[in-house]
Amino acid sequence: MIQIAVMGYGTVGSGVVEVLKTNRESIAKRVGQEVNIKYVLDLREFPGDPVEQVLVHDFETIVNDPEVKVVVEVMGGVEPAYTFTKRCLLAGKSVCTSNKALVAAHGAELLQIAKDKNLNYLFEASVGGGIPIIRPLQTCLTADEIVEISGILNGTTNYILTNMTYHGANFDDALKDAQEKGYAERNPEADVEGHDACRKIAILTSLVSGQRVDFEDIYTEGITKVTAEDIRYADKLGRVIKLLAMSKKEADGKYYAMVAPFLIDAANPLYSVNGVFNAIFVEGNMLGDSMFYGSGAGKLPTASAVAADVVDAAKNLGENLGFYWSGEKLELGDTRDDKRRFLVRVKGDAKADAVAMEALFGPVEVVDAGVAGEFGFVTGELSEAEYAERAAKTDAVLNRIRVEG
Amino acid sequence: MIQIAVMGYGTVGSGVVEVLKTNRESIAKRVGQEVNIKYVLDLREFPGDPVEQVLVHDFETIVNDPEVKVVVEVMGGVEPAYTFTKRCLLAGKSVCTSNKALVAAHGAELLQIAKDKNLNYLFEASVGGGIPIIRPLQTCLTADEIVEISGILNGTTNYILTNMTYHGANFDDALKDAQEKGYAERNPEADVEGHDACRKIAILTSLVSGQRVDFEDIYTEGITKVTAEDIRYADKLGRVIKLLAMSKKEADGKYYAMVAPFLIDAANPLYSVNGVFNAIFVEGNMLGDSMFYGSGAGKLPTASAVAADVVDAAKNLGENLGFYWSGEKLELGDTRDDKRRFLVRVKGDAKADAVAMEALFGPVEVVDAGVAGEFGFVTGELSEAEYAERAAKTDAVLNRIRVEG
Repeated sequence: MIQIAVMGYGTVGSGVVEVLKTNRESIAKRVGQEVNIKYVLDLREFPGDPVEQVLVHDFETIVNDPEVKVVVEVMGGVEPAYTFTKRCLLAGKSVCTSNKALVAAHGAELLQIAKDKNLNYLFEASVGGGIPIIRPLQTCLTADEIVEISGILNGTTNYILTNMTYHGANFDDALKDAQEKGYAERNPEADVEGHDACRKIAILTSLVSGQRVDFEDIYTEGITKVTAEDIRYADKLGRVIKLLAMSKKEADGKYYAMVAPFLIDAANPLYSVNGVFNAIFVEGNMLGDSMFYGSGAGKLPTASAVAADVVDAAKNLGENLGFYWSGEKLELGDTRDDKRRFLVRVKGDAKADAVAMEALFGPVEVVDAGVAGEFGFVTGELSEAEYAERAAKTDAVLNRIRVEG
Repeated sequence: MIQIAVMGYGTVGSGVVEVLKTNRESIAKRVGQEVNIKYVLDLREFPGDPVEQVLVHDFETIVNDPEVKVVVEVMGGVEPAYTFTKRCLLAGKSVCTSNKALVAAHGAELLQIAKDKNLNYLFEASVGGGIPIIRPLQTCLTADEIVEISGILNGTTNYILTNMTYHGANFDDALKDAQEKGYAERNPEADVEGHDACRKIAILTSLVSGQRVDFEDIYTEGITKVTAEDIRYADKLGRVIKLLAMSKKEADGKYYAMVAPFLIDAANPLYSVNGVFNAIFVEGNMLGDSMFYGSGAGKLPTASAVAADVVDAAKNLGENLGFYWSGEKLELGDTRDDKRRFLVRVKGDAKADAVAMEALFGPVEVVDAGVAGEFGFVTGELSEAEYAERAAKTDAVLNRIRVEG
């Protein structure tokens, strides 16, 4: 029997307990021995919940118990999760986590400690919830150079955008609906401003490049400025707007990463990923296009991914599995040099004003979505810097959305 | 440096050589040493091709060379691949393959030999080409009970059905087009009759259940009877027709497997998998729905999956990775007991004849796709046996397609 501890009895933590209990037999078969939850750490009491029997309030109980070989950290946030994780690893315990904030902030250091001590720091659930992506990147796509990872990595924003696209909702109403359904927090900033997706794409880029990516370096734009009018233009173009977290290795050998709303067309496999689902598109230089799709959040899907990490950690005590990136900082390419087309909405009338816009932006494709007092156009390929420079020369611009592909 | 041999220099074999050459450095980094192709086995000559330097015509050269630790078998077909694979394993060499016919026919025995000898018999490329699915099932979804795997597992038939759906082609023309583009063989039977998909779902069911599934036991229906009229009815229902290979674990604990054309709706993630792409939908009891999407065939994607197996085999010399099912035969559930709805097309006129059909099939939803001299209807839930019994009582039935979900 292998003893584990779960730190944090919130949504994911209680899910992990449930998964390990429900599938106890099949998990024991895979590990080769039974997995027993010796402690659950939480500051709160849970009167009447069977967890009471193993509930502890003091982290020292866990870190000082040599019987505990694997610790699940599902507390969220950087502190005290960081201190606790580091101490567990230094005490010779593998750690499995869903904590993207911590992995994005201190992954390199924690992975190094795990490597040095022949332990594992596993974080499948930190990106894409229940979708297997970290392990496939590490163990399946090993004959490929990964040239692109782009994903719909945040379920809240995808739910909101889906609602806006298919039910004509505006952003505020769609957000309110998401909050009422429990898909968005009361303070939704981390989701709707793209911070959550940013941390996830930082983790994926670190894994693919083998170097530390500082998430603060990644240009991040949320969906709060996406309007019902934008959606009408997208529809006119046969496209949908998705919040993409994107990381591409360009010909110069540099990685270009960005989080922003993009217009994508039906040929893109991410086009039909709707609601709270997430999906991660991966392009390998040999494999071509592939995509991993599933529940990007939610109690049991996320817990399933954490529990799969527990299985792996328990099966491989004393052996580091090679999930790793170095502490050496990766200098990302300057996204201002990134070239793409832009959908631009401007005040005015296409007949009268398109010429002036072409004089400014070069040849454009005018889009009439039937919105009074304005029109739209799609530019040719421009770098971000070129677009910004030109847009600054007019006060007609209402909004712009990047066009992918 | 680790020495390997490639048996078969056809499409996939030459692809494997190309992948190992193109990504040599990154692969060496992952393996921890360089991977060198010491021999390529083929009966043919390849004058002017660099492969000449390592080309051998005699299998004995490979099996008797103790330096060769990993053998790639990409010859296809059961013999002589079976004899060669068995002899390689018995000689202490791990084997990586894309050969679904061999894995479906003799997987249990070959996996047992590999296990007994602390070697690996790896077959990621045998299902879904470049799509990682075998390894995710084995190493990622380990905290779940898999309750369903359904996939679009054959690119040829998906290309044909996509063409029929979106360009109104009939089956013969769509097949001809697929043959001209190289997506279908001159003798297309294995693809269009569903045999290829059948072998793949047999492999997946074996892996999930841990027992040997005989592919001959799986009810298999191809797409040769799907007509342009069927597509019109599907369209009227807001559905598309896909050849699904399906395996479900029902409440009675039995696995029900089947290959047949199904009507699926837009809520199904397989709905928008088009052209030669494949996708595999997996439902776990904790994870919920997930899907793996990518190139189901093609030289480099398939070779990428084989090469990833080579990386794994090379990294784990002397250690069996646990890819395994026992030789004990799995008794599949009787698909005649499977319950679902059916789209039925019948001769006649809805106004005059729907009543007679309801008398026979129970309450139905009539579908008018504007095809002269006939009409369609969707039945309520019936078992396969019930449907067959009722349909036998009328000579009006033109075709029937199963409805999924």
